[in-house]
Amino acid sequence: MEKEITEMAKYMDIHRHLEGIDKEKVDEAHKKDLAVQGKYGVDITNYWYSEREGAVFCLAEAPTKEAFGAVHREAHGLEADEIFEVERGHE
Amino acid sequence: MEKEITEMAKYMDIHRHLEGIDKEKVDEAHKKDLAVQGKYGVDITNYWYSEREGAVFCLAEAPTKEAFGAVHREAHGLEADEIFEVERGHE
Repeated sequence: MEKEITEMAKYMDIHRHLEGIDKEKVDEAHKKDLAVQGKYGVDITNYWYSEREGAVFCLAEAPTKEAFGAVHREAHGLEADEIFEVERGHE
Repeated sequence: MEKEITEMAKYMDIHRHLEGIDKEKVDEAHKKDLAVQGKYGVDITNYWYSEREGAVFCLAEAPTKEAFGAVHREAHGLEADEIFEVERGHE
């Protein structure tokens, strides 16, 4: 019997060059992520956005980096410029 | 009588090119930040690090971007490559 691998890693991604973003647009994209993430076993736990810099940071637990990337790609097509596997300083 | 401005903004910074970092080194640098941050009215609320990528993300509340930068500079000299003023998606 195959054993499912359920270990989750943490990832932080950065989206850049999102000129003209605002809270409404970011919230809308995030809702689309939430609708899709379950299919990939991903849990986006928080995000931060900079209107001035046109940037978004998303923090997620995911089985792989590729799974995290797939959520954004399928949800709204706004893929991250970079994805980092991270450990959290404070637990 | 002057009124103190106590409004705090949130900032996310990125430190790159930290080859060879590990939990111990990051924790040590963070302790130095904590020892200095009060002088600048800064509160570093969380951080994440990537050993593989040699990168650290710090999330802070600070009166200004410059104050946040000053904490790292004085604490250990490892200044961020970029500092973004951010809003948090989830409150």
